[in-house]
Order: sequence, then structure tokens, then C-alpha cells
Amino acid sequence: MNDRIREILSWYVSENPGIRTNLARMLNHGRLGGTGKMVILPVDQGFEHGPARSFAPNPAGYDPRYFFELAIEAGCNAYAAPLGLLEAGISDYCGEIPLILKCNNHDLLHEDRDPLSAVTSGVEDALRLGCVAVGLTIYPGSAQSTTMYEELRELTAEAKAVGLAVVVWSYPRGSGLTKEGETAIDVVAYGAQIAAQLGADVIKVKLPSEHVELKEAQKVYEKYQIPIATLADRVRHVVQSAFDGRRIVIFSGGTTVTDEQFFSDARAIRDGGGFGSIIGRNSFQRRKPEALKFLDTVMGIYEGSIQ
Amino acid sequence: MNDRIREILSWYVSENPGIRTNLARMLNHGRLGGTGKMVILPVDQGFEHGPARSFAPNPAGYDPRYFFELAIEAGCNAYAAPLGLLEAGISDYCGEIPLILKCNNHDLLHEDRDPLSAVTSGVEDALRLGCVAVGLTIYPGSAQSTTMYEELRELTAEAKAVGLAVVVWSYPRGSGLTKEGETAIDVVAYGAQIAAQLGADVIKVKLPSEHVELKEAQKVYEKYQIPIATLADRVRHVVQSAFDGRRIVIFSGGTTVTDEQFFSDARAIRDGGGFGSIIGRNSFQRRKPEALKFLDTVMGIYEGSIQ
Amino acid sequence: MNDRIREILSWYVSENPGIRTNLARMLNHGRLGGTGKMVILPVDQGFEHGPARSFAPNPAGYDPRYFFELAIEAGCNAYAAPLGLLEAGISDYCGEIPLILKCNNHDLLHEDRDPLSAVTSGVEDALRLGCVAVGLTIYPGSAQSTTMYEELRELTAEAKAVGLAVVVWSYPRGSGLTKEGETAIDVVAYGAQIAAQLGADVIKVKLPSEHVELKEAQKVYEKYQIPIATLADRVRHVVQSAFDGRRIVIFSGGTTVTDEQFFSDARAIRDGGGFGSIIGRNSFQRRKPEALKFLDTVMGIYEGSIQ
Amino acid sequence: MNDRIREILSWYVSENPGIRTNLARMLNHGRLGGTGKMVILPVDQGFEHGPARSFAPNPAGYDPRYFFELAIEAGCNAYAAPLGLLEAGISDYCGEIPLILKCNNHDLLHEDRDPLSAVTSGVEDALRLGCVAVGLTIYPGSAQSTTMYEELRELTAEAKAVGLAVVVWSYPRGSGLTKEGETAIDVVAYGAQIAAQLGADVIKVKLPSEHVELKEAQKVYEKYQIPIATLADRVRHVVQSAFDGRRIVIFSGGTTVTDEQFFSDARAIRDGGGFGSIIGRNSFQRRKPEALKFLDTVMGIYEGSIQ
Amino acid sequence: MNDRIREILSWYVSENPGIRTNLARMLNHGRLGGTGKMVILPVDQGFEHGPARSFAPNPAGYDPRYFFELAIEAGCNAYAAPLGLLEAGISDYCGEIPLILKCNNHDLLHEDRDPLSAVTSGVEDALRLGCVAVGLTIYPGSAQSTTMYEELRELTAEAKAVGLAVVVWSYPRGSGLTKEGETAIDVVAYGAQIAAQLGADVIKVKLPSEHVELKEAQKVYEKYQIPIATLADRVRHVVQSAFDGRRIVIFSGGTTVTDEQFFSDARAIRDGGGFGSIIGRNSFQRRKPEALKFLDTVMGIYEGSIQ
Repeated sequence: MNDRIREILSWYVSENPGIRTNLARMLNHGRLGGTGKMVILPVDQGFEHGPARSFAPNPAGYDPRYFFELAIEAGCNAYAAPLGLLEAGISDYCGEIPLILKCNNHDLLHEDRDPLSAVTSGVEDALRLGCVAVGLTIYPGSAQSTTMYEELRELTAEAKAVGLAVVVWSYPRGSGLTKEGETAIDVVAYGAQIAAQLGADVIKVKLPSEHVELKEAQKVYEKYQIPIATLADRVRHVVQSAFDGRRIVIFSGGTTVTDEQFFSDARAIRDGGGFGSIIGRNSFQRRKPEALKFLDTVMGIYEGSIQ
Repeated sequence: MNDRIREILSWYVSENPGIRTNLARMLNHGRLGGTGKMVILPVDQGFEHGPARSFAPNPAGYDPRYFFELAIEAGCNAYAAPLGLLEAGISDYCGEIPLILKCNNHDLLHEDRDPLSAVTSGVEDALRLGCVAVGLTIYPGSAQSTTMYEELRELTAEAKAVGLAVVVWSYPRGSGLTKEGETAIDVVAYGAQIAAQLGADVIKVKLPSEHVELKEAQKVYEKYQIPIATLADRVRHVVQSAFDGRRIVIFSGGTTVTDEQFFSDARAIRDGGGFGSIIGRNSFQRRKPEALKFLDTVMGIYEGSIQ
Repeated sequence: MNDRIREILSWYVSENPGIRTNLARMLNHGRLGGTGKMVILPVDQGFEHGPARSFAPNPAGYDPRYFFELAIEAGCNAYAAPLGLLEAGISDYCGEIPLILKCNNHDLLHEDRDPLSAVTSGVEDALRLGCVAVGLTIYPGSAQSTTMYEELRELTAEAKAVGLAVVVWSYPRGSGLTKEGETAIDVVAYGAQIAAQLGADVIKVKLPSEHVELKEAQKVYEKYQIPIATLADRVRHVVQSAFDGRRIVIFSGGTTVTDEQFFSDARAIRDGGGFGSIIGRNSFQRRKPEALKFLDTVMGIYEGSIQ
Repeated sequence: MNDRIREILSWYVSENPGIRTNLARMLNHGRLGGTGKMVILPVDQGFEHGPARSFAPNPAGYDPRYFFELAIEAGCNAYAAPLGLLEAGISDYCGEIPLILKCNNHDLLHEDRDPLSAVTSGVEDALRLGCVAVGLTIYPGSAQSTTMYEELRELTAEAKAVGLAVVVWSYPRGSGLTKEGETAIDVVAYGAQIAAQLGADVIKVKLPSEHVELKEAQKVYEKYQIPIATLADRVRHVVQSAFDGRRIVIFSGGTTVTDEQFFSDARAIRDGGGFGSIIGRNSFQRRKPEALKFLDTVMGIYEGSIQ
Repeated sequence: MNDRIREILSWYVSENPGIRTNLARMLNHGRLGGTGKMVILPVDQGFEHGPARSFAPNPAGYDPRYFFELAIEAGCNAYAAPLGLLEAGISDYCGEIPLILKCNNHDLLHEDRDPLSAVTSGVEDALRLGCVAVGLTIYPGSAQSTTMYEELRELTAEAKAVGLAVVVWSYPRGSGLTKEGETAIDVVAYGAQIAAQLGADVIKVKLPSEHVELKEAQKVYEKYQIPIATLADRVRHVVQSAFDGRRIVIFSGGTTVTDEQFFSDARAIRDGGGFGSIIGRNSFQRRKPEALKFLDTVMGIYEGSIQ
């Protein structure tokens, strides 16, 4: 194990050796293994957005085995998915890639201003399937956030006791926030802080915009002149907000951007001290050769071989 | 065991041998045993719609033993019913037909825009009664869907640990959907996907219409020209949406159609790669000789002896 | 289901439907399905006598899958084995033959005058593997019999609650008996009675000799002139001793006899009202073609096609 | 152990020795150890107000280790923080300062008129981290107060059984009160009484104003001429309201005052028989040398070396 | 916390912060606090040898409070005793000295060649009483050692989960050893190794003699010329045998020696890298002034102020 990975693991010294072992499995796996950077393939869109919206662009994705193949061939650090998708595909790929069981899910058939994800699997499933971590989404800003924080706390206590790492998708959303506020720099940083306080080992947030949502926060950002002009600045501030960089923070990008914009974002994540990307639709919604090429470029940016 | 059944079981290799044994028991039982197709008799209408609406058309159905006789004589693959109905009838028919315990139920005495079924039995009951599977209804689109998903998750975890298969009735419904949307092709496919993600071994959905409910989905169906013009097309898309056909998906038909229409639907299910039908009122609400004849035709269509 | 099986099941009407379903699965399976007779393949000799003594005569038996194939091809009613043997072989044969999990085992590496088998698996294993029954050996006559009776009682309570049938190997042995007494007619009948009293659904005993072991019993056998002259007489008496024939009693034969003697014994079991045989070494220690032919003859005798 | 500490512990003689041991650990630690006064560093603002508002004034606070250093160097009696902050920092400071695990938290991303904090950690975490106490905030006056009282009751029962002391932040707030009423003397005293009744070992309240909120209370305060004119009077009344001074009551000050005002308040707390201060933002939002100097003055006031 | 204590705690970094906190509490307490050396007062002789043999030499010891006073006044690092003794004395001394709950005990009323201590208290007692550690005696060499190892394993798992340190008295004894062998250097070192392997945080052994008990060990000691000539050599070898000095090993001396001999032994423990002494009868069987003087000398030797 190299010094960078040792350094990252040193931040988790209060966790038991099982958790640190599982973090090491992710950090040392795949093409970025040993760099301290991670690219993770997440596939929960079938549940979250429905099958056609998710898989019609690349119908290979209707088959649960496809994502294992994609993540393995691309050299991702881990693959994250809900229970059914992991169960239906794992059998042929045991031991080939670290797995994260996404333990709650939300669908679009009933839209809520204040969403609450359903807990759809748990720690016993994760152990039975050989996962390295469990993951949960929280929606800070939702009127239901207390419920989600408490579900996360329960899952975290149970997972950590058996040495599983905990990945938190912290996506501010709900009646407490404007639409623009969901990705505001102060709100994304706050979401990262909440996830860290709740015990997350790995924190996933959205890329923050320059907007500042909360009035009280606005005063502070101005008074202390916190740099948020560039994306790299904002990434740096979000990472700082997760225990001064002592927790792994990775970023998601959504689908609305061009490849060039995505690569530019990845450079900003890298330059701002982010730990990598979680890339779903941008990878599995194109055919495999294009997906592999796309991921190859992203990983090249993270490892520094591509500027 | 023939190759087709082996192939179907191979999709479930992550499940324990008990679950695969129970799936094999259904797939190999009755007239369609070994074909990979299934016709299941479900009788939960007494609870769901009240006794007179359910049984007056054929008063033999007031007696719980009647449904065992009907399912056995017709050569169905399985019989599914709530706790009371199974308990009151099973004693004379132990071991004669695979049983599915329907573990939640909903009645009409209190109508809800956003229905929530009551959990009325569980895994211990299913084992005690010698069942091969437990079944649960979920209503994606209901404001109560989170509760139902979480109830399903608990039942699934408990059932699978003891080798029982899990059958999910995924019936989108509730304030998130229009009435027409409940059987829209995108919504039915989405409901099948959700059931698969939640770990269902066998998925029961309604026959989908050509309507597309969700705007975001509409764009995708058009852009990728997903074929949904014929019922067989739509069945194929729903089956694809359940892990690319690697989960057993069966269809229900309701009561509003003529026999000829029903047979035509069965042909579409067969031609679209569906795995069969779950036939309640159409079978038990006519006198036994007519019911047996009706089911004989449906099974003939599935086994291919009738075109 | 035919009248004979219904009659047999009627003796078990106090058991829950799950148990009766699992008894029906055995009684209706294989070549003797529906006759009320059973031939079961048991393979615990690897544990009990060591691998070479057990499998060298027919090395195919070193592979756990072999016994599944043999039992399925021969049309046995069930296959009984310890945990490891079932686990290592089941995956390719789910649903093809009823399984009995043999839950205790004894090895010869430490010989005891008063043997006590180790409990090596349990009800959760049986459910997970899709078994129809659990089995346990007791040694009435051993100084350790109290422990074994109590272990049986615990297993029985747990198994029956979840619908598993209970098979008891009742093999009198230990410091309370002479060697000859282990198969004495009074002792074998006593062993069958104890198993029935302990709640066994299926009782396995050794073929009884004409010897009467216990002095007090001797007086009674003489006073009432209980017929024990022929093997059929003695089988009839043992079956009578298991609740007047209202429990399934099957017989084992050991290895020391010629095939002709074995067939003759089978005729006596049949003529005395016994329910069949459990045939281990006589089947799996010869090559498969010979084993199939041997079992074909035994089954022919039980079904009456061979006199 | 000196007489004053023995006297304080004597009020807790109904608690088990583990709780008294942990109270003694706080009372005997740091610069005020043995005086019966306490200054505690609490840091839950990262969760409660967001990271920038909390830590931008002194960016050292982004690093969880900073608060351990600050509390240790200042000679505080204890450091209180949520799960994540303790976990991420504790490893280098095991055994150096008594820790209080703050077990519920509330964020500002979704503002509620009737707030409910999420339970974010518990007794097992506190033991695993070597804490001396758990802490919980209640909001008397909130429509959700019943939920919080019951959560406190559960945590208290569990914590006391394992010898952990219980610290309650009693902050009246919600639709039952005016803004001014949150710090009204009658309301603060009432909040202290509720905390004591719920079994709190240490009670934290806000400094009370001269305002009396409740009409029925107003009559009594006037009739009996309860002295509330000076802050020392009001502190005395609040302490009296917590079992006549037989529970440790400490006060928080907020951030809106000058240092001189803060010191004056501390004198009033001391002179009114209060047990000390819990000082968060006033300490960690200034650079360490200033913070240490500020805390040095406060502690000097409490120990009497500064008048 | 000074560097030596930090170094010692660094050996325990796989333990949770609670355990390290409790180790720090012992290491930093009393006159030897911060030196890395410990003197512990153990009083289980009342149970082990009977009251008169234990307390008649200094009748003050009949009162459970006496041992708290002695340990506190002498400045011991900790006091270890069985449940009753702690419960009956603790109330007046909460928080004044770290406590070790001795969780198993053995009496002399039934002497066994192969002794087995009774488990007489547990983790819940230790928490309720505010202890920093639980302790257990094992007798390697006893025919009952398997039972004791398994009891220790259970206690260890339970204690460590709640942050309690584990102290093991490893006293080889029983039919597997000669009387002389109980303190043979190879056997004492072996006992230390076993305790370390079983997860002990602090290991207590007897002072080893020059005798080598086991023949196979004898060959190795000779071949590799392991230095065991002086007591300091032997202490060094025992400490090495407990994970190369990365576990705290302390020594007991018994009563058969003169004070001068005891001081000489303490110097050897110090010079050989031992971590201190556990001193029972030598301290509490003389009157308090003499005991304090005796312990003062021993502590002086450990801190280096006395050569």
C-alpha cells in the first residue's frame, strides 16, 4: 500500500479495521487504484427514473450483468446499485469489483415536494452479496429529513459494526430550498458537512454552483471572502466542509453537459482536491466502446496523465 | 428437469437452493409443467371486493375448498390466496398444488386515493401451510408506496432466508397517476422494474395499454422508437424491463373482456415472451365445467397446442 | 392424489399442512410415487465410516453430485445426507428430488461404547437448501440417550413449526444392550415406539432378528404368543409398535447380504406391511448401471410388479 | 476528591456509581477541576448552522482535531459534539478530555416553526468512543415536544443503565411561545424543571431575560414577588427550579454580546449559584490565542481569581 | 498526555477509542501516571483464600471501603476486585481511582487438580460501576482451559464493544504441568502469549523462574541461547512473548519474599522492560502506614527516583 492510501486511511483510524480494509479495497482497485482518486459506477436510475428513460439509450443496460462488465472493463473503483440489480448480476462476477449496496431508493411515480426514499435493503444483504459498503441517499432540506437522518444512523451503526464502509449521497432538496438552491455552494457544502457529522465514510455530492442560497450564509461568504468564483474553488470549499478534507468526497455530474464540459469539470474536481466522480448515465447510456473511451479520459484526468 | 426450466432457474443462481427448488416446484407442476409458462389461480377478491361481488356469480366459491379443486383439476401451476382461505381449505389437499400465500390485502370499505394494503400474514404462516412462495401487492404511484416498499423488503428478506420464493403484484395506482396511467406502458414497465429491483422472483403486472403517462418517458419512447404498437410489443417491453427477461413476469387480465379477447391477449403474452397469466375472476366466477374449459383453452395457447 | 396417499396423510392430520405437504412430496415422488411405499437413498457413510471405506468401491461417490444423479435416475423418493454433501451438490439439481437433511453425525475416529452423535446442522439449513425433512439418529440403549432424545425434541419442535417433516433413525446401541440385542425384535420394536413417541413422522429401523433381548419382554412375547417367526411377522410387529401402523416405518439392510437375500428381505418388508427401504451402501457402492438395476428390482418388489 | 465535589455527587446518590464516576470525571477535569464549576466546549454548529457560518471566522475549525486541542489547551471540563466530529478527531486524544456525545441534531436547510431534532447517534456510540455522557436537545414549546421527551426518556434509560451521565440542552422554542418568550425567566425556569423531571444529570439552558411569558405564571411571580430583577436573581431562580440546586445547571450565551458583557454574565451566573458556562461560538470562532485568553478570563471569574 | 503514553496507546490503535481512553485513564492515574509504569492493587483473596487467611493479618481489610482508601492514598493506577467488593465500597469513592472488575473467581473449598474459575460478574456490572476494565483469570495447563478460553473470548467481545479494556490474569496451572512448571520461564512466556492471542489489553503473569518445563521448548532455548539467567532477562523474554512488548505486561509477586527481595524483583521488572506490578497481599496484609511506605518504595523504583 502506498503512502497516499495510507494517509487517506489514517483519517479513518477511529473506524474498525474492517471498515478501513473495505475502504482500502475500493481505493486500491481498478485503474485509479493507489492514486487516492476514485471513479465509481452507480446504477440506480432504473428505480429512480424508470427503465426506458434509463436503458433505452443503450439497451444492453436492461441486463443486470452489463453494469458489472462495464465497471470491470473500465477499471472503476466500485459499482453501486440497488439490491435487485446486484443480486441478479453478481453470480458471474464474484470478487471482480468492489460493490456498494444502495440501500434506499425513490421512484418518480409519485412526486413529492419533500421526498422520502424507501429503505429497500440492508446490512445483511450487503454481507451476503460480498459488498464493501452500503449507501444511502439523504435529502437535507426535505420536511422528511429527520426520518432519513435517523434511517441513516441506524444503517450506519449496523454497517460499521460489521466492518462495512458507509457511502452517503447527500442531495439537498425539498420545500426548504429553491430549485437553484439545491446546488448552491453553501447548500452543497452544508450537505457534505451533515453527511460527515452523521458518520459517512465516503460522501457523494453534486457539483456546486456559484449561487449562495441562505441569507445568513451569504453574509459570511462575503465577510470572509470565501473563494467560490471557479468550480475548483467551490470543490475545495466543499471538501474543506467535510472535516477539512479528512473524508473522501466525490462528485456527480448529471447528464446535461457535453463531454468537453464533463472533462473540464473533472479537471476542476481534481484541481480543487476532490477525490473523484460517480458517473452513471454519462457512462451506461452510451454504447460500451464509447463508454470505455469516455471513462478512460476521465480516469486519465484524475491520474494526471491527461491535463 | 428439462433445459428450459434449467435455463430459467439459471437466472436465479444468486438465490439459495430452497428458493430455486420452490420455483422449480411451480414451473414443473400442472399441465404447463416444464414449458416455462405458468397459469396461476389467485383468489383474493373476497377480501378485496367483498363476498357477494366475488362469489355470487358462482356460489361454489363461498367454500374455500372449491378453489383447491378448481386449480388442481385445471392443472394450474399454483394457487394464491390470503391466509384464511388457505388455512380453511388446505387440509384435504396437502401437497397437491403449489401454494402462494398472499400476505397483504386491501378492502373497499374504506376507499383511499392513495391505498395501502394491510400486511395480514407472513413467512411463518407460509411455512406452516407448506407454501412455495409468499406474495405482496405494491402500489407504485401511491403516496404510501414507501411504506409498501419497506414492508416488501422485510418480507422478502425473511422469506428468502427460509427458501420461499417472492411473488410481487406490482399495480401502479394512487395520486401520482391518472386512472389511464395505471396501465400505461411506461408505468407498467416501471412497476415491473421496481418489483425486480426490490428482489421479486416472480412479477405480476397488468396488461399494458399503448398510453404513455410520464412526460419525460414520452420523450424517450419517441426518441428511441421503442415498439409499443401491439400488445405483444408491449409485453416484450415489460419483460425486458424486468432485468431483460431474467425474471418471471406474468400478466393479469381483469374481467371486462370477452373470452375471445382474453384468448387473444394470451396469444400476445405468449408471442411477446411473457411467462403466463394469473387468472382469477375469469375462472372462478363461472361454473366449474365452463371454468375448466376456459382454462384448458388458455393453457393450450401457452403450450402452443392452440394457435 | 390417490386414496392410499390420502389415507397415509390422514394419520398425520394433527400435523400442520406444511408437514403433510412435505410428506406428500416424498410419497408422490419417483417411481414408487403414489404407491405408499418408499425407497430412500441415504449417504452419511463418508462421515460415519470414512471416505475410502465408503467410496473406494465406486469412486464416483467421491463427487457430491453423484448421489443426486443416482437418486434421480433410480427414481428414489428422497435423498438423505449431511449438510456438506447436500450443499456441495444441490445447485444443479434444485427441485429434482425431495431432500432430507441428516442433522447429526458420528465418526469412528473416537469409538465409544455409548455413542453420542454430534448435531451438525439444523432447520435453517434445511429451509435454505429446500429440504422436505430433517433427520436425526438416536441410540436407545446408550448411556447418552437422554441427550439425544432432548436434541431430537428440540429439532422436532423447531422443524415442525416451519412445516418440515421429521425422520428418525432409531438404532438401539450402547452399554445397555448386547451386540445381538441391537437387532432383537423386542428392542427394534421398542426403538420404533420411542421414535414415534418422540414425534417422528418417518421412522427408520434395522431389520429385526428373532432374538428377544429383554427378560421381562421375553415373558410377554411368550405369554401372548406374539408371532415373530418369519421376517414378515417381525416387520408386522415393528410396524404395529409404531402406533399400530399409523406412522411410516422403513427398514435398512446393511451390506452383508447377497442381492437375493436383500430382495427376499424386501418381499418380507412388503408382506409385513412395512413402508419401504432406505438403501445406502448397497446402492452407491456399486457402479451406476448395476446400482440402477438393483434398485429397479427392489422397487419392482415394492410396487408388486415383481413377486 | 474535595468536599465540594463530594457534596455535588451526594445529590446524585440514587444514580449508579458509573454515572457518578463520569460526573466526577467532568467535575475534576481541567482548570476548574474541583471547584464545582464547569466550562464546556460544545461544537454542533457545523450541523446546526452549516460549515461556513460556523468555521469561516476561524478556518482551523474545519478540522475536527482543532476542537480537541482547543478544549484541552484551555482546560475545559468537557467537549461536546455530534458523532462524526468526535469520531473523526478522537483518535489522537483518547483519554485527554471528558467527552459528551451530542445525540440529536437539527439543521437549517428546512426550517420548522415546531422543530424536531433527528436522533443521530446513541449509547453504543458513546461507549465505543469513551464518552462520559450523552446529550440531547429538547424544545419545550414545540408541537413535537412529546416526541423529543420520549426520545430523551429512551436515551436516558439506556445511558444510565451503562453508567453514562445525561446532559440535556433544554431550549424552549416553537409555536407555543413568542420569540421573546424563548428566554423569558418563567419559560427558562420551566425548561430547567422539565429537564430535571426527565432525569437530566446536567442541564443546559439559555440565560433568562426579565420577561415573563405565561399569564398564569405572571400572576404568581407578582404575588410572591419572586426576585428576577438582576441576572444573578434570575440565574438563582433557574437553579432553584432544577430541584433546588441539586442538579448541575449551566448556561449558554450565544454570540451577540461583547466580551465585557459575556464576562459580566459569567459573574452573574457565578453570583447566582450557576455551575458554569457552555461556550461554543464565542470560543471556537476566534483564533486560538484569543480563544484561550477569552476562556482564561471566564474560568478566572468562575474560580474567583477574577472578580 | 506525554509521548510515552502516546507510544503505548499507539500499540492499541486497532481498538476503539473507548478502550484507548480507559487504558489512558489507568496509565495517567496516580503517582506513576504518565510514566508508562503501573502498580495495581488487586483484592480477590477473600474469595480465593477465605476471609481469615486474607484479612486477619490486617483486620481493616474486612471492610470493603479499606481497599479504596489504600489504593487512593498510595496513588495506585487502579484497583481490581470481584463484584461484591466493588459494589459494597464504591459509593464513597466514585471517580477517585480506575476500577477493574474481576469477573471470575475460584475458591478453595473444593480443590481441583484442574481448576475452573466461576464467572461471577460481567460487562453490565462493570459499566454500571464505572469501571475502566474487566479482568479474567485463565489457567493454561488445566484440563478445563478450553472452557476458560471460551469464557474469556465471550467476555472480551462484549467488553471491547462497549469500550472496556480487558485484563487477563494468565496463571498456568493444572494437570498438564508440574508444580515447578507453573512459573517456568517457557510456561510463563507461553501464558503471556496465549493471553495476547486471546485479545488481552493488559496481561498479568507471575514472575518466571529459570526452570524450563517443556522438553521441546528446552531444545529451542538452548539452541538459540535465549538469555534467561537473570530475572531481568526473563522479564524481557516474557514481555517479548507478548507481541514484542506491544501489550502491557505486569507481574505479581506472591507473599513469600522479604521486602528487600520484592524491591529487588521490582528493579528486575523495571530493568527488563516490564510495565509494573500487581500487589495484593504484600500491601493489604500489613497496616496502612506500613503498606503506604512499602508501596511508596515500589513506586519509587518504577519511576526511577529509587535505584
